[in-house]
Amino acid sequence: MSDEFYMDLAIKEAWKWQILTYPNPAVGCVITDKFGKILSIQAHKKAGFAHAELNAILTALLNFSEFKTKFEMKFENRVFLASEIYDFILNNHNYLLENATAYVTLEPCSHIGKTPPCANLLKELKFKRVVISIKDSSDIAGGGAEILQKAGVEVKFGVLKDKGDELIEPFLAWQNGNFSFLKLGSSINGILKGGLITNKASRKKVHEIREVLDLLVIGGNTVRVDRPRIDTRLASGKNPPDVLIYSKERSFDTKIPLFSVKNREVMITSDINQALKRRLVMFEGGDGMIKNLPNFVTHLLIFFSPNLGVLDNFKVNLDLKLLNLGTIDGNFYGWFKRSDTNCNLF
Amino acid sequence: MSDEFYMDLAIKEAWKWQILTYPNPAVGCVITDKFGKILSIQAHKKAGFAHAELNAILTALLNFSEFKTKFEMKFENRVFLASEIYDFILNNHNYLLENATAYVTLEPCSHIGKTPPCANLLKELKFKRVVISIKDSSDIAGGGAEILQKAGVEVKFGVLKDKGDELIEPFLAWQNGNFSFLKLGSSINGILKGGLITNKASRKKVHEIREVLDLLVIGGNTVRVDRPRIDTRLASGKNPPDVLIYSKERSFDTKIPLFSVKNREVMITSDINQALKRRLVMFEGGDGMIKNLPNFVTHLLIFFSPNLGVLDNFKVNLDLKLLNLGTIDGNFYGWFKRSDTNCNLF
Repeated sequence: MSDEFYMDLAIKEAWKWQILTYPNPAVGCVITDKFGKILSIQAHKKAGFAHAELNAILTALLNFSEFKTKFEMKFENRVFLASEIYDFILNNHNYLLENATAYVTLEPCSHIGKTPPCANLLKELKFKRVVISIKDSSDIAGGGAEILQKAGVEVKFGVLKDKGDELIEPFLAWQNGNFSFLKLGSSINGILKGGLITNKASRKKVHEIREVLDLLVIGGNTVRVDRPRIDTRLASGKNPPDVLIYSKERSFDTKIPLFSVKNREVMITSDINQALKRRLVMFEGGDGMIKNLPNFVTHLLIFFSPNLGVLDNFKVNLDLKLLNLGTIDGNFYGWFKRSDTNCNLF
Repeated sequence: MSDEFYMDLAIKEAWKWQILTYPNPAVGCVITDKFGKILSIQAHKKAGFAHAELNAILTALLNFSEFKTKFEMKFENRVFLASEIYDFILNNHNYLLENATAYVTLEPCSHIGKTPPCANLLKELKFKRVVISIKDSSDIAGGGAEILQKAGVEVKFGVLKDKGDELIEPFLAWQNGNFSFLKLGSSINGILKGGLITNKASRKKVHEIREVLDLLVIGGNTVRVDRPRIDTRLASGKNPPDVLIYSKERSFDTKIPLFSVKNREVMITSDINQALKRRLVMFEGGDGMIKNLPNFVTHLLIFFSPNLGVLDNFKVNLDLKLLNLGTIDGNFYGWFKRSDTNCNLF
């Protein structure tokens, strides 16, 4: 299969964790052994935890029983730091991945953050090729390709570059000050209302996203009608997002559950630009929110239920570009970008 | 990666050609070499042409330049029969696929149809393993696994069996007398009307499907309002489907283009059970058709455009099960099964 085939697998894996990785970008990594067999398809999943390359290298090495036994003896039944894994791999890889190929959606990092540099690990393990979708242009993390090339590793850039750019665009917008997106839960015939639409797995994913947000924007009408809690009980239950109620009306029934969730701020304002003061902002809502969607909300994450109903659809004239599609336990979701907006990043 | 990973690739590939293969079932095949590297991901694409296994074996062998050169010398720039390819492979494979593994969604056939038996080919090429999702229970084609096992090939059944069953269910219904499905073209907020909804690639796919139908059912209202042609001009342009206009009214303006397409029969009836006299039947339509969908229409094929509009959605209370999802040039499509019906096949 072509380099594009493996890179596509890496990009799709990374999209599964989009948003959840900030302040790190969503990155995916596929590793094939010296014969071309796929050993792992992995991604960076959460800030502070292993980078995509480290996850993929660890998963790849666990295919080998000699490594697996040693790993289990050391780490089984206990939590471990990414840096511990990194060191363990350096000491125990025994060149099992010599001449392997790594397909990475973003140039491997060259800096020591919470984990040591991935480029160095690929070099030490004697990878033959590192295929990269897009260059890391940051001053801090960039330069990984140079480390690899100097060590004689073949580096290929630009494989599925457009898809690689789309994958990292939300992160770059966040880095530039703000990434705002609208999350919807819809039936496949466009119904947002009338109770729970999507399945539990979809709602759990939304709660996981809420935990990493800087701000969640919701309409005044939704607050009044749905009387929501806007918490994260289907995920860890911690870190409820700060909430901005986008409304001209300033007074709400304070018995509405969202006001009594601890460790959160609630703002009520008709000035939607207040949302731009936060970096990672999710809009949730229905018809009213979509019709009044600010221009800075460039992306949509829509969860779809395959159960059709007879209520009215949400209505808006908006051309979207499909970026990624995934299934989630019988429901499915899509990441879309508005065609009428631009993050102005490239 | 697991057997399930490769089988999933084979199943997804096969769904791309669902319907188009009749009177053969949709079948997918992935081949990995003796080291586990993926050499091909293929499917059966059209009756009379190569089976999935033959397509996958040919594609796999074309990875080897010694085979590719010989193949090009013999077949380049001319049309060839599947049986010619089969013989050519038998004479020229040079055991390049010895110890390879084939992942097939359906037990390889044991009979000589328009192409010789696939089980025999896998045996002659000395495959090590053949991993199969579901057994072929037909008297004619079944028994492939026995041929393989007798020759010492390792055969594993039942990998992703549920997905394998879902893939072949439309074909089995067809074989039992009738497979009927509803095709829709919808925006992702449920709009079917107001001109062209989906992109050209989606509409081309629909025309390709129309070419193999026994019957296309359309509502009287659609005929009157849209004045359609219902031809196959975006595909080969040949084989326009016979049309059943599902309507109480018997007289239509004969200037409506569909009546002047050659080589087709047009019926007008309010007795929808007439459709059951044909084996492969596609329903096309809008709100009215969906609301009056007969119970024997068990599946839906929905093409989705990511462009939102402000018209009303189609409305129906219907719970669907998502079977397969695919992208098509910026649009996407899903195969769904109605939860309130059963093909009664298993």
